[in-house]
Amino acid sequence: MNRPALPRSADKPLFTPGPLTTSQTVKLAMVRDLGSRDGEFVAMVKHVRTELLDLAGVSQRDGYETVLMQGSGTFVVEAVVSSVVPPQGKLLVCINGSYGDRIAKMAEVHRVSVATVRAPEDQPIDPAAVEQVLKADDAITDVAIVHCETTSGILNPIEEVGRIVRQYKKTYFVDSMSAFGAVEFDFRACEIDYLVSSANKCIEGVPGFSFAICRRAALEATAGFARTLSLDLLAQWKGLEGNGQFRFTPPVQTILAFNQALAELRAEGGVAGRAARYRANHDCLLEGMNALGFEEYLPRHLQGYLITSFRYPSDPNFQFEDFYTRLNDKGFVIYPGKVSNADCFRIGHIGRLFPSDSRALLHAISDVVQEMGLELDPANVA
Amino acid sequence: MNRPALPRSADKPLFTPGPLTTSQTVKLAMVRDLGSRDGEFVAMVKHVRTELLDLAGVSQRDGYETVLMQGSGTFVVEAVVSSVVPPQGKLLVCINGSYGDRIAKMAEVHRVSVATVRAPEDQPIDPAAVEQVLKADDAITDVAIVHCETTSGILNPIEEVGRIVRQYKKTYFVDSMSAFGAVEFDFRACEIDYLVSSANKCIEGVPGFSFAICRRAALEATAGFARTLSLDLLAQWKGLEGNGQFRFTPPVQTILAFNQALAELRAEGGVAGRAARYRANHDCLLEGMNALGFEEYLPRHLQGYLITSFRYPSDPNFQFEDFYTRLNDKGFVIYPGKVSNADCFRIGHIGRLFPSDSRALLHAISDVVQEMGLELDPANVA
Repeated sequence: MNRPALPRSADKPLFTPGPLTTSQTVKLAMVRDLGSRDGEFVAMVKHVRTELLDLAGVSQRDGYETVLMQGSGTFVVEAVVSSVVPPQGKLLVCINGSYGDRIAKMAEVHRVSVATVRAPEDQPIDPAAVEQVLKADDAITDVAIVHCETTSGILNPIEEVGRIVRQYKKTYFVDSMSAFGAVEFDFRACEIDYLVSSANKCIEGVPGFSFAICRRAALEATAGFARTLSLDLLAQWKGLEGNGQFRFTPPVQTILAFNQALAELRAEGGVAGRAARYRANHDCLLEGMNALGFEEYLPRHLQGYLITSFRYPSDPNFQFEDFYTRLNDKGFVIYPGKVSNADCFRIGHIGRLFPSDSRALLHAISDVVQEMGLELDPANVA
Repeated sequence: MNRPALPRSADKPLFTPGPLTTSQTVKLAMVRDLGSRDGEFVAMVKHVRTELLDLAGVSQRDGYETVLMQGSGTFVVEAVVSSVVPPQGKLLVCINGSYGDRIAKMAEVHRVSVATVRAPEDQPIDPAAVEQVLKADDAITDVAIVHCETTSGILNPIEEVGRIVRQYKKTYFVDSMSAFGAVEFDFRACEIDYLVSSANKCIEGVPGFSFAICRRAALEATAGFARTLSLDLLAQWKGLEGNGQFRFTPPVQTILAFNQALAELRAEGGVAGRAARYRANHDCLLEGMNALGFEEYLPRHLQGYLITSFRYPSDPNFQFEDFYTRLNDKGFVIYPGKVSNADCFRIGHIGRLFPSDSRALLHAISDVVQEMGLELDPANVA
């Protein structure tokens, strides 16, 4: 099965949760110097903020605002956690993976009281469990959930949980890092107060900033809550609204790239178009992996199409580092696993990748399986 | 005096404190996709960290470490302020401009006790005043100073202050945002524990991350001090040391650009070579501005060569916004002022600019003076 290598672009395609493969036009948009107070740049920041609302299906007129924040996705998650929970507030964190855990850890660092609703890493958060906790604990002011837990690739029921959160009149924070831009959902039906994501996920920009889509009335009610200067969400919004500029130096080139990425997302048919491509990447890969004898970690009905965790094969000759390096040498970058109760590796389906890339990766994996002398049995895969 | 416009590159040159004009080769280095766990990227991060130590004239062997931090320069300043002052510590902040003020404000947000030594914005910090406070207040554990106050452009005496800080056995933090890479100084003679700067200043990268050069023994003694997760300096260092990777998604393309920028800085003759070019930019501009009748804010002997504040001319026809816009329309970007006790605008001399750029700017300013009908008297300029 030694097929000839397909022609590759200069860089290896990244089958990862990000930073990911971006289009050449997105990267070329960075080959500029623009002042952070320049009219063109200020107009672009405004455009990007509006486009993000549009992507979420909301608008300023409806009472929503976009805040851009320098740094990786983790920075905007911490911006929300440290800026919107009241001083005597309590945050309920829904946890079924390490990104949920991280939110709880952030809250603890900021001495915010925390309650948790947990589910196993291969199960979605149970809305009834959230309701139970909200019913029992009046002190809770805010609820946080991860949309797509990148740990496993599972999608959580953000709309069902959101309805309950609204019913109990709590503030609702959705970390949609790996999902926003490629998963269709009804922002308002989810009753979201704060949703965060980053430049280098499904919108296919390069890393350097992240963003929060905020219900304005919720945001305006957080005066005096911020526990940091740099990550102060309300102050950052006021800065952007005031003169259109960032309070502190923005990652200009990253925003130039993101602006181009948004145009390309729109050209692809928006969220629906992008979701279709990612789903095709995923379906193609999963079918091929199953045919090779690799089994996914999640039950089929819970498996999202953004990133897939695969269990290590039982063959003792399988060593992940060897597997990873051999694939890397062939020009394919995959990702280590993160679930705590099973040995897994992950393959991302997001970024400027197409089913042809999934097929090329499958050929390479097939070759590596042969090279490593792995005995896999497709019949064992459900 | 309507000289023909000089040929310009695609983008306007930025005579600002940053983001600034970078070389085309620095920008083109970003036209890549590289995984954040990729061996090539990990090796590059290590190289960048080592090069920064080398630029400071120190090494890991001597006990120094570089920590890279996502976000603008303000983020790494807050990382130091919130990570290295002990829980019951007290920070003495030397203030002669808004960046000193910002450090004090950060400390307050993190409920760190603050003492201050102030000087007027047109005067450097007085080392004797620092000694007086340290002598009088035993509670002080840390001292912070801004190297080049971008507010005015003044350079503070970081070595004299550093000797005193060491004598009193305090931790010394130097914010060298606008100076590092283009101002020669003896890192060890300054007795610095933490020095910070950012990618998009004198090293001439693009914005997206910042860095701290740390005395390892000082950093290692800060366990448990961090008041945030994202900006935790010690954890960030341990992450980079552990597997060579960032804890959270790095701005890959910004680091690719910075790596190229460091090579170009080395090719220019390091700090001495870059300082010579910036000084030439400054000297050329200042002479021309004085000849036109513009007066600088600082006394000549205190004026650094990185950024210059000019007083508004007394002619009532001078309106800064008009002046700025006209220059912008001719393709030159300058910067508003920031000193609190005088109306000023600022012109930066840093970035990929040469004396020919200073001359081109002077021609444009001369034209704008004519267009605006300003009556300036060079004889009035000292």
